[in-house]
Amino acid sequence: MSMGDKSGFFANWQTLDAEKYLILEYYFETTSPPDEAAAHLCQEQSTAQWKRVGVDEDLRERFGAKVIDLVVEKTFDKPNYPTLATNQTQSYGCRVRIAHPHENFGPKIPNMLTAVAGEGAFHSPGISVIKLLDIEFPESFLQHFEGPKFGVEGLRDRLQVYDRPLFFGVIKPNIGLPPKPFAELAFQGWLGGLDIAKDDEMLGDVCWSPLRERAELLGKARLKAEEITGEKKIYLANITDEVDRLLELHDIAVERGANALMVNGMTTGLSAIRMLRKHTQVPLVAHFDFIAPFTLIPDFGIHSPLVTKLQRIVGFDAIIYPGFGARMKTPDIEVLQSAQACLNPLGQIKPSLPVPAGSQWAGTTGDLYKKLGTVDFGIVPGRAVFEHPMGPRGGAASLRQGWEAVEKGVSLEAYAAEHPELKAAIEMIS
Amino acid sequence: MSMGDKSGFFANWQTLDAEKYLILEYYFETTSPPDEAAAHLCQEQSTAQWKRVGVDEDLRERFGAKVIDLVVEKTFDKPNYPTLATNQTQSYGCRVRIAHPHENFGPKIPNMLTAVAGEGAFHSPGISVIKLLDIEFPESFLQHFEGPKFGVEGLRDRLQVYDRPLFFGVIKPNIGLPPKPFAELAFQGWLGGLDIAKDDEMLGDVCWSPLRERAELLGKARLKAEEITGEKKIYLANITDEVDRLLELHDIAVERGANALMVNGMTTGLSAIRMLRKHTQVPLVAHFDFIAPFTLIPDFGIHSPLVTKLQRIVGFDAIIYPGFGARMKTPDIEVLQSAQACLNPLGQIKPSLPVPAGSQWAGTTGDLYKKLGTVDFGIVPGRAVFEHPMGPRGGAASLRQGWEAVEKGVSLEAYAAEHPELKAAIEMIS
Repeated sequence: MSMGDKSGFFANWQTLDAEKYLILEYYFETTSPPDEAAAHLCQEQSTAQWKRVGVDEDLRERFGAKVIDLVVEKTFDKPNYPTLATNQTQSYGCRVRIAHPHENFGPKIPNMLTAVAGEGAFHSPGISVIKLLDIEFPESFLQHFEGPKFGVEGLRDRLQVYDRPLFFGVIKPNIGLPPKPFAELAFQGWLGGLDIAKDDEMLGDVCWSPLRERAELLGKARLKAEEITGEKKIYLANITDEVDRLLELHDIAVERGANALMVNGMTTGLSAIRMLRKHTQVPLVAHFDFIAPFTLIPDFGIHSPLVTKLQRIVGFDAIIYPGFGARMKTPDIEVLQSAQACLNPLGQIKPSLPVPAGSQWAGTTGDLYKKLGTVDFGIVPGRAVFEHPMGPRGGAASLRQGWEAVEKGVSLEAYAAEHPELKAAIEMIS
Repeated sequence: MSMGDKSGFFANWQTLDAEKYLILEYYFETTSPPDEAAAHLCQEQSTAQWKRVGVDEDLRERFGAKVIDLVVEKTFDKPNYPTLATNQTQSYGCRVRIAHPHENFGPKIPNMLTAVAGEGAFHSPGISVIKLLDIEFPESFLQHFEGPKFGVEGLRDRLQVYDRPLFFGVIKPNIGLPPKPFAELAFQGWLGGLDIAKDDEMLGDVCWSPLRERAELLGKARLKAEEITGEKKIYLANITDEVDRLLELHDIAVERGANALMVNGMTTGLSAIRMLRKHTQVPLVAHFDFIAPFTLIPDFGIHSPLVTKLQRIVGFDAIIYPGFGARMKTPDIEVLQSAQACLNPLGQIKPSLPVPAGSQWAGTTGDLYKKLGTVDFGIVPGRAVFEHPMGPRGGAASLRQGWEAVEKGVSLEAYAAEHPELKAAIEMIS
């Protein structure tokens, strides 16, 4: 790459019109000179060939992605990921900020993903590993996105719960039960204190548990539980399915009493969620299937808090994502950044409720509260509620008791002395 | 995990009804005993809790995923990917085959992806890294999928070309030109010998090149090129967009003369392609954006030939995917396996045309032919056609000449002596 070729892909951010660009932040490793690798990265993701043969033109000024900051953070004796490098010499670990003109694709999720995480980014000459860390959106771009219809406030309004975390429970056995006993489990969970009883991410509209019948029975059980407890309750139905069935399943479930809907958004594509958001009458909840394959590897793929941010932008009111603990393989800082991606100001887009998941039980709510520094989150245990030795009613009660202990500033063990459900939960875990 | 807990997730394949199961093949690494890790993997991706509290039942027989083969292939002193392992002891690299009852989710892409590449697979206890290598589908499952509407044969019929590879060309400059000069470039490419002039994957329906106007001009240019050359030609328009616009953009483009359509299928979600397949009047072509982030890492994510197979199943008639050469970061064996995933028998599903991409030019067609062992493939150069010193007409001519040399068994250099376009192409590369 010649100096002239390279310099067209560099710019001073101060001289650019901020409203016209997304700012993309990447980490990458290269065995090439870092500035050349960064210029290639811009070229490959925007105007790869910027002039016609025999025509005196340069399309880079308007359409070229441009390096606005480049820092070499690390130097390696040889590439970190040898199979992805084209040679095995000294390698640089770099952080780059790129201003990408969003008129190249417009406010569209699939086209944006093509530019920021497509062939251009992942097959750029000289770059071995690359991770897309963040995207900053100007108002001019963000204004085209609807974001959550209800958000944290709308979700809380529906439950009339404002001063504590929300208690989700994943109804288990998650797979295999017909709707009737399944509804009975949810009913017991609501009686015990769940705010939201939910279908597992694996339970869709299947022949042995048709969504129509399940929503009917759980809708009725919910109303009964509301009557008995005097509390508002939510049945969160999983409508994950082929995208041309999402609106139909929305209607089937909502008409029968599901009052929130879950979709495994990466398996349908985030664009389908944006479509559903325009139609939905109830809050939408994200589950994180098919995200780990491109987020878990350090320094490669896409940074998980950015995926959370995108899920908020397309319209999820609550986002279940990998939380704290070794099984979820997600560094604590990423779990926190995802909570921030849900809650931090983002143009006109409402906040989403963060729901860090994985091996939750009565004892984890206090920890989460301390780590997140807010009550605006959900916890989403499965077996801790539905395999509780006193049954789902006892399991759900233990969750509420675990939080009461936090509220009263009492140790879990002390509070358990007078609360047998909590006591049994502690014994079950240890 | 107790012996009894574990054994319920193992089975002898001979005793199972083959039509009821998908066979999933994974590579995984674990610091736990391999059989325990494999049992957890089955449990987490199917019926995580297989009985209710206080009820004597076992949902595993019908609904449990089951290990049918497990081989420890490697032993490591410590985990290969330390940040993903829960402890740093001796680690096993295992290959497992799992029979997963497909009635757990039904013949639906998003629900299948949830089961095979969701939380259950990527956050299974004790497993550090995992790669989904393959899925084998029984007829009972496959029969619900439409597959390519035209396939290789239908694509060839449209071009009336049967005895050689198909020549795609990515119109460049890919981003920034308005429709009129863009159409002129395509026209020159067709005159030179391109079968298919295509939009770049980054070029969608944008304000500075609306698809409506682009399809109109390229549709007309195509007819003119067909008249002049006496050959059939294809304009492959990129309609990648939000999923609720795909059918509308199909109609806009096809009515105006686009006679094949490209979608970056992972950015829209594969389910959206299945929807489009039901509607389409023209062949559909896949581009590989957003696939590298979950396929490139050895031993982690999803094996790229499986992604190719899934793209065929949802209905792509041709699949552009990372081909040979260091820049594409894809082992040769994977490139070949993807070609096989396109062409091998697969129930009633038609073959798709494999189009291995990346730095193609006149000289690579012969190599591809030798490596793939068939003329049923496409090549898809960009700059080699549109940055050719003699312009796109010369660039396209050089492609055809490169193939003529192969057909005649003449060396490229010898053939170039009498073909200035090929000569210039060789000089451009070296």
